[in-house]
Amino acid sequence: MRIAQVAPLYESVPPKLYGGTERVISYLTEELVRQGHKVTLFASGDSVTKARLISSCPNSLRLDKDCKDTLAHHIFMLEQVYKHASEFDIIHFHIDYIHFPLFRRSNTPHLSTLHGRLDIKDIFPLYKEFREVPLVSISNAQRKPLQGVNWVGTVYHGLPKDLYKFKARHGKYLAFLGRISPEKRPDRAIKIAQVVGMPLKIAAKVDKADKEYFETVIRPLLKNPYVEFIGEISEKEKNDFLGNAYALLFPIDWPEPFGLVMIEALACGTPVIAWRCGSVPEVIKDGINGFIVDSLKQAVKAVKEVRKLSRKNCRKTFEARFTASRMANDYLCIYEKLLREREPLLKAV
Amino acid sequence: MRIAQVAPLYESVPPKLYGGTERVISYLTEELVRQGHKVTLFASGDSVTKARLISSCPNSLRLDKDCKDTLAHHIFMLEQVYKHASEFDIIHFHIDYIHFPLFRRSNTPHLSTLHGRLDIKDIFPLYKEFREVPLVSISNAQRKPLQGVNWVGTVYHGLPKDLYKFKARHGKYLAFLGRISPEKRPDRAIKIAQVVGMPLKIAAKVDKADKEYFETVIRPLLKNPYVEFIGEISEKEKNDFLGNAYALLFPIDWPEPFGLVMIEALACGTPVIAWRCGSVPEVIKDGINGFIVDSLKQAVKAVKEVRKLSRKNCRKTFEARFTASRMANDYLCIYEKLLREREPLLKAV
Repeated sequence: MRIAQVAPLYESVPPKLYGGTERVISYLTEELVRQGHKVTLFASGDSVTKARLISSCPNSLRLDKDCKDTLAHHIFMLEQVYKHASEFDIIHFHIDYIHFPLFRRSNTPHLSTLHGRLDIKDIFPLYKEFREVPLVSISNAQRKPLQGVNWVGTVYHGLPKDLYKFKARHGKYLAFLGRISPEKRPDRAIKIAQVVGMPLKIAAKVDKADKEYFETVIRPLLKNPYVEFIGEISEKEKNDFLGNAYALLFPIDWPEPFGLVMIEALACGTPVIAWRCGSVPEVIKDGINGFIVDSLKQAVKAVKEVRKLSRKNCRKTFEARFTASRMANDYLCIYEKLLREREPLLKAV
Repeated sequence: MRIAQVAPLYESVPPKLYGGTERVISYLTEELVRQGHKVTLFASGDSVTKARLISSCPNSLRLDKDCKDTLAHHIFMLEQVYKHASEFDIIHFHIDYIHFPLFRRSNTPHLSTLHGRLDIKDIFPLYKEFREVPLVSISNAQRKPLQGVNWVGTVYHGLPKDLYKFKARHGKYLAFLGRISPEKRPDRAIKIAQVVGMPLKIAAKVDKADKEYFETVIRPLLKNPYVEFIGEISEKEKNDFLGNAYALLFPIDWPEPFGLVMIEALACGTPVIAWRCGSVPEVIKDGINGFIVDSLKQAVKAVKEVRKLSRKNCRKTFEARFTASRMANDYLCIYEKLLREREPLLKAV
């Protein structure tokens, strides 16, 4: 199949550091290439792929200090995709909604995976207007706020099977990995470590938008002797960071659309202690590959019980449900379904 | 003529407080209606106009605290404009570039007035791609960074002739009106007042992005006994604020695309002391309706000499060059030219 993947330009594909969406797009793209499909990736010029790369900007935008206007690059990319559209059987967008008006008028079938949270009232009129656009959610929970649109499937994220090595033995610290932000609740992770009396390592980036939160709420807590803040880490460092952890803490306080770090931990064999929010109940099987909790008290209890869980089973749940090949196959099913549904229309013309 | 005006949604048209672009769109729209044209205004639902209003959001976005995603409303508006396009002879966009890919494929002629600064490298590839799109600059200086595009004219902003009343007698303070930001250089205004020993009144809004600058650089300077900070003021308050001033200080340090406040001051009869940047030499005639300066020393000298300028002449330069009817006529000439150029193409079809 001739497939276009259209990525955001904030990070390269794959990203150099943090960047869940761009990383998933990379895994999907490379897996589709591996399976023999003819894939074109629209992404920043510093992306690395075995697919054909078409880039509308030389460098990814988040780490480019000279970048003052990210939207201009995305609008330019839309034009590029549109001009190439007839070369593809299907176009798979990962850039929210900015392509909707233009591609409503394209003859090439397309679908859009929504990677962000959807409980934002600003987007409702837009999605209602474009109710025919095929949309894919990354968890069933993510969909809830957005009704009356054309959901064509939920496809959970996946990682290459051998990206992370299984670590049979747990280490002696709790891990927090992600963004420092109020909704990720690093403060809860610190509190848990303090109550349990176990070291906590925090690997996290601090976005500009979260700088104030970091300085006023989190930095004072970092004085806690149990806590070690190690900043943003690379892909390579993650295997050790997650794999050597006793458990991953995922104490979120928002409707997390997917939560890639959960399946990264599972791939290493590390169980996850997560708050019951968003996608969590779809990824974590309570008492199998982690615990789902509703309170600090339950989280503390979970830390004490987590060593009873089999790290092998954690890895097994990853291999069964969260590999890149499973993800690619799910998407291929959707691509084929969209093309099949289109055939009668074409014949009728 | 059947004309669509497409406004940004950040402020209502006209805006309730600050908002140069939306204010100019309002003046243009109402003047076109007054001249008998059939005008449709795409703008936020709290806009007030004698034209037909089509709104894609009930409230303007800057003052809406619940608004988290301004882009979604603009993309939704694009779809609305496109659906109505066949009802118009011409569509006049004021929303930078987000409509370019979609309206490159529209049959309705369109043009875009660029209201912002253009010396931003991010936008160059995009404008190069869309080099056929008719663009209007709001000063000749604004164009400089953007070559090789289809500039079809410069149209200076204009105000309704009777919006501001002429004040024959000057007052005893210097005025600064605008945004508190490093490029507007309120610190220079304060310095001038201090050296000259004359009161300075600052009427200004502080954007989120400029909060830190305000707190760290400007707030300490406000202790200066010569300085009075009065915050954001409404349209109605401007006539007194500007008209009663001894002179307007416009000590900018950036390529100001137009600088609406200069012509507001002139409409009141108040001369302008401005730094030689961006549009300034196109608006201010040195020694006639103000002074153009390059240094603090020159600015101080200008304050001392400004009373020699005739306030009547200041007002006259406004009436001759910066009224809304002159602006509307300039735009009508461009609309007609674009339609004429199109005719042979249509006949050839």
